[in-house]
Order: sequence, then structure tokens, then C-alpha cells
Amino acid sequence: MKLSQLFTKTLREAPKDEVSVNARLLARAGFIQKLSSGVYSFLPLGFRVLRKIEAIIREEMNKIGGQEILMPALHPKEIWEETGRWDSADYLYKIKDRQEKEWALGATHEEVVTDIARRYINSYKDLPLAIYQIQTKFRDEMRAKSGLLRGKEFSMKDLYSFHADEEDRKKYYDKVKQSYLNILKRCGFEDVRVAEASGGSFSKEYSHEFQVPTEAGEDLIMFCAKCDFSQNKEICDLRAGAQCPNCGEKLKEEKTIEVGNIFILGKRYSEPMGLTFSDKNGNKKSVIMSCYGLGPSRLMGAIVEVYNDDKGIIWPEEVAPFKVLIVDVAEKNDTAEKLYQDLQEAGAEVLYDDRADKSAGEKFADADLLGIPWRIVVSKKTISERKFELKKRREKGTKLIDKKELLKKLT
Amino acid sequence: MKLSQLFTKTLREAPKDEVSVNARLLARAGFIQKLSSGVYSFLPLGFRVLRKIEAIIREEMNKIGGQEILMPALHPKEIWEETGRWDSADYLYKIKDRQEKEWALGATHEEVVTDIARRYINSYKDLPLAIYQIQTKFRDEMRAKSGLLRGKEFSMKDLYSFHADEEDRKKYYDKVKQSYLNILKRCGFEDVRVAEASGGSFSKEYSHEFQVPTEAGEDLIMFCAKCDFSQNKEICDLRAGAQCPNCGEKLKEEKTIEVGNIFILGKRYSEPMGLTFSDKNGNKKSVIMSCYGLGPSRLMGAIVEVYNDDKGIIWPEEVAPFKVLIVDVAEKNDTAEKLYQDLQEAGAEVLYDDRADKSAGEKFADADLLGIPWRIVVSKKTISERKFELKKRREKGTKLIDKKELLKKLT
Repeated sequence: MKLSQLFTKTLREAPKDEVSVNARLLARAGFIQKLSSGVYSFLPLGFRVLRKIEAIIREEMNKIGGQEILMPALHPKEIWEETGRWDSADYLYKIKDRQEKEWALGATHEEVVTDIARRYINSYKDLPLAIYQIQTKFRDEMRAKSGLLRGKEFSMKDLYSFHADEEDRKKYYDKVKQSYLNILKRCGFEDVRVAEASGGSFSKEYSHEFQVPTEAGEDLIMFCAKCDFSQNKEICDLRAGAQCPNCGEKLKEEKTIEVGNIFILGKRYSEPMGLTFSDKNGNKKSVIMSCYGLGPSRLMGAIVEVYNDDKGIIWPEEVAPFKVLIVDVAEKNDTAEKLYQDLQEAGAEVLYDDRADKSAGEKFADADLLGIPWRIVVSKKTISERKFELKKRREKGTKLIDKKELLKKLT
Repeated sequence: MKLSQLFTKTLREAPKDEVSVNARLLARAGFIQKLSSGVYSFLPLGFRVLRKIEAIIREEMNKIGGQEILMPALHPKEIWEETGRWDSADYLYKIKDRQEKEWALGATHEEVVTDIARRYINSYKDLPLAIYQIQTKFRDEMRAKSGLLRGKEFSMKDLYSFHADEEDRKKYYDKVKQSYLNILKRCGFEDVRVAEASGGSFSKEYSHEFQVPTEAGEDLIMFCAKCDFSQNKEICDLRAGAQCPNCGEKLKEEKTIEVGNIFILGKRYSEPMGLTFSDKNGNKKSVIMSCYGLGPSRLMGAIVEVYNDDKGIIWPEEVAPFKVLIVDVAEKNDTAEKLYQDLQEAGAEVLYDDRADKSAGEKFADADLLGIPWRIVVSKKTISERKFELKKRREKGTKLIDKKELLKKLT
């Protein structure tokens, strides 16, 4: 893609009404645009990042046997009444249509997925089963000031698993835990804590939150740096400095962003909704469930919160909108254009800053702001030496390199 | 994918409350499930078809320079008030949230896309521009009995183009027209009419509808079989048998399904919303717009309406959930399993009916119902002859063929 043809432009200043780092940087760089508090459009660069995160999630979900479906956002009132949540879930957007029929906008899909499952699951032979979707969710948030971290409308991958017994559920739960760690690693997070948290009103067991340490985090966790003990402060009886219950090490406290969570549902939905199966002896039993959430748009916000500096965003390679940015500061010369074509032919995703009306200074500033992992500069000097200047966004040094080496490195 | 592991199962009977052919067949075959009238879930097979249609659209949109974005479904009341449509669009779902703020659910995105464009378009140098999204739309439909053809919630590709003058707009409009014909051809439609229709209350010029002939169609068009004259009956002054105004041939009437439409917007949105640009002489002018809609879920329904027989669906190859279905009716033999692996390794998308508890008759009936383009039967007889039986879903004859030939043909 040529930057001169890209729809969006970078902005000199972040929008005044944005306070979070992720929204300020993403808006300045032209990745997102706010329509209303907690409601964003994803512009071409932002959309590319979102699709890359989704692709990683999809790949990892399919690896653990997840079957992808797509459920609706319009939920009839009746289905939420089956579990008693029509009245209790205060974050639901509710609609009355022209014919006075009432609807909720899907904030989560336990009711809908259980309804689908009860039409197909009859026997123990139909279990276990794991189905997921990547879909838009809606929540009537009172405060939505955290950019992509807390939206009124946001994208969510929600996986639901169905089991004949508790042992099988547990086995799959651990599988998903590992899958989430794989996803987060591929999204660039080098440091992720799996923190125990409240299982909600319907479970005595812990749920698990995937927490990423950052100063901007709204969550607080207690953790042990030596073993893997980690708890959300809301449920932790211990304070910083106390001994880790596992290994005796001193516990620490840190601010984190929750990027995913996994829940034991047990029979919370299957029982009231009549999702049963016949076991080997022909006895009818309620299906055991778990659910697992991970939000692509929230992940995008979290990545920016963790990976940035005073100049802009620093995208991890697998989620970057483009892998390489060519900055052309040599006037009237086709070296950059040729390199752009060669890299594209070799299969690299390249953004090419071919803008004729921008100074070298503006182009370098935009390169840092956009945060593309690799930057190649084509200047009079590099042309005279028959080389290219290569720089990693997250490192300081530059390197002169010839075309052959460059193509090898980047494709 | 092995059919024994696929989440859904085929149903003996179509749901009693479905009247449309597309909903009856898609529900019976396990592609979709109704949550409420006009609101469907896409189950694994249905989701695959949806993704294939989306991929075709995306490819063709990118070819004509469309840049993909993603806009929200939650629209604040204020933006619909800017164009006066908050009060006039009676199909809008409206919400009042916990803080008494009012929202509309996006039924279309002219307001939102114009808002985005006015923040980035300043000069004639920023034009022309084409941006699109594939996104979920909501319409408060009074009657939603046509399955995927008329949903309360449905997927839509909406493209918007922005131009400095009428001439440039016209040129791009014709480009999109051709692009739509390419998309519909790739989706399997052999017969598509581009019918003139009303331009709506704000245009004297015609809009264009992409109409697919079928007895189940809710639209009526007048057309000439000799030249390309075609008009929606709603605006056509001529009757069947009258002379074609272009070539004198006798006009015919037929029932059709509208699968897409393209509109001239002109300054309808840019003027009230202040989307202007400076021309070469520095004069401020309103941007000229067009919009272009094409619904992936509606297309899926239309494909089934047109391509089916009394046994089930007949998917065109490029949108089929799988290309090949292997039906194993040989007991205790690994020939089918091996073929499944070989075809997958060769890159074919294969569904393998490995179910041990189904009769040959049930498997053949399901094969016809599911509508996968190519069926391979593995039986004791074919094994003894070291061949496979190959059949096209849309043709009658079968053919015995050896593995080498089979792999060549299907990959």
C-alpha cells in the first residue's frame, strides 16, 4: 500500500477528549476514530491489526477442536428470561421494536449457545463439544474512557465447551488455558499472568484471568515472581510482602490489564435451559459447561498500552498492519518504488511512504507514530552507496544493507 | 472435517415455522438455526459459506481500490439528526441507555461514513476515495418470513465512494457495476439482470438493482431478452408484450430476488453534514457520493433459492462449504480414510462422511441435502475394482475413476 493512497492521515495532536494512551495513539496514527464514547470505527490500518489478531485466535481455537459459528446480536427477551438474567444483567441494552416485542443486544451468548446446543446434543456420543464465534458484543457501560479497553461495542471471541462430566471439563479447561497463553504470546505479550479470580455468584471454584502488567492497568493482582501463584486483589486475602502460599516467596502487587478470562459454568445454564444428554446407561443428565472469552479489539488496545514510547506505537510483528515501511527521502528517484515492488513480489506486507509533499522529518515522525516493525530508508546517501538503511522500530541502531540481504531478511 | 465430529446434524423435517425454500433447506441441512423470526445463527457449515462469499466480495472490492474499514453498529442519535433521518427512517431500532442517551442500531452507514470522511477529506487531492466494510446491520422488519432474504439482523457489504465531480462519480459507478457482476458470477449466478429502479426521494436518476430470476422472488422486473433493458416493475411504464424502448423486441416480466443495489447519493449526505473539499482554485465544494450494497447472508439465501432440487441444496463450487464429500459405505476398511488424508494433503477441502451408525441410504440422502459439489463413494465394489465413484451434485451420471485421476481432477 502506498501511503499517498491510504485513506487516513496521521494527526498532529491526539483528540482532546481521549485520555487513555491506546486511544490517543491509535487515533493520532489514524487506526481508529471515535463515533461516541466507547464506540469506535476501525480505519484501514486498525482494521488490518484487528484481522491479524482474529486470525491468530481463529488458528489457535481450531487447533484445540473449536468449531466456528456466528450467533446473532439481537436476542429475544424470552431467552434471557429462561436463566433469569433479563432482570439481573444491568449492562444489557434493551430494545422494544415497532410491534412492541422486546430484545436485548447480546452482551454475552451463554443463553443463545445453550439454545443451539440443546437442539443438537442428545447423547454422551455428542460430547465433548467446543464451539466459538468472533462477534460484536454490546454493553451499556456507564464509564467508557479507556479507548479500546472498555467499549460499549467491542469484538469478542467467545468459546463454549460442553462435557459429560467434570473431569472432561477440567481437562479441556486446561487445554484452553494453554491455548490462550499461545495466542497472547503470538500477539506479542512477553509477560502474562494467569490470575485466579472470583468464579461469580454461581461457582465456588476460581475463574482465571489473563493479566498483562502495565502501569495503565485498571486491575490489581497479587503475584509471586518465583512460582506461578497469582490472584486478583479482589479475592486475595494476602498483601504485598506476605508469604506466597505455594513457595514462601514474598508476594508482589502490580497493575494489570485483563485481556481474557475463562469461567467454569457447570450446570448454571444447562439446568434451567434443559440442556441434557443420555449417558451410557440411558440416564438423563445436565451437560457440564465452561466458557472462555478473549476480545480482539481489547487486545489491540492492550498491545498499544504495553508497546509504545514517547514517539508512538511499537507493533509486535505478528499483529502489525504491515511488516515493513519504506520511507523515501530521495527526491525524484525510482529506487524506493522498485524496492516496494520487489518486496511485494517476494510476499512481504509493505507500506510505502511515497508522499511527495512531506518533509523527511515529517516522514520519520510518522514512521515512529505508526509503529511498523521494520523501517527502510531510501535516501541520496543510501543510493550512492547502493545500500538501504534498515531499522527495527523497537531498537535504536540502524544498519546499511544491500538489496539481496534485505529481501532475505524480510521475506 | 469428519462428519462424525461436525457439531450439527441434518434434520429429517424442516422446522414447521419456516416457509421459504432457503430457510427450510438450510435449517434441515444444519447450516443455520433460527433464534427468532428474521434472526439466525450460522452453524459451522453455514459459517463456511458466509466466509467464502465474504472472501469473494473482499477480493473484488480490493481490486477496484476499495479500502476496508469497520464501522460500529451503535449510532448516537445526533448523527442521524444531522440528515433528518432519525425521524424519517421507521425501520430503525432505537435504544435508550442507562444514562438516558439515545442510540440507533445501524441499518445503513451513510451518516457514519460521511462523518469519518469529513475528518480526512480536505482537498481535491484526497479524492476520489472508496471505502467499504462487511458488517452486521439491523432493521426493524415488520414481516421477516423469507429466511436469509429479509432479516432483522443481516450481514452487509457497504461501499461508499467520494468524488470531486459528477463525471468521476459516474466512471466509478460503472466500475462497481462490473465488479458486482463479477462477484455474482463467482457466487454461481449464471443469470443476473441489472434493473433500473427508483433513485429514491433525493435523486432524479435511476438506481440499479442486481436481480436474479427465480420463482420464489418477491420482486417483479420487466426486461428485454435481446438487449440489456431491464426495469423494476415499480417504475416501468411498459407492460409485458410491449416493445422494448431500446430495440423493439417484446418485453417480458419475471419474478426475481434483489441481491444487490447501487445508488447515486450526490450531495444528499455531504451537504447537510458539511463534507466539503477545496478544488484546484481553492473553492469549497460539497463532495459527490455514491453507495453500493451487497449482502453476504442474503446472497447465501438467494443461492439456495436458485440452486436446489427436491433432494436438497446444490452449491456452486466457489461458495460451497467443502468442495468434496467422501461417502464411506464400505465397512471396516481404511480406503476412504486414506483418500480423505490424500485429498487434504493435496489441498482440497474435504468433508468425510465416516459415520458408523448411518446406513448407506441415509448417507446418500444427506449427501444430496448438504449439496457439496463433488461426491465420492467408497464401497466394497469400488474397492474391489481399485476405483472410486465420482459424481457431480448437479449432474446425474456417476463415473468410476482411479485415485491418480481423482486427485488431479479435484485439486
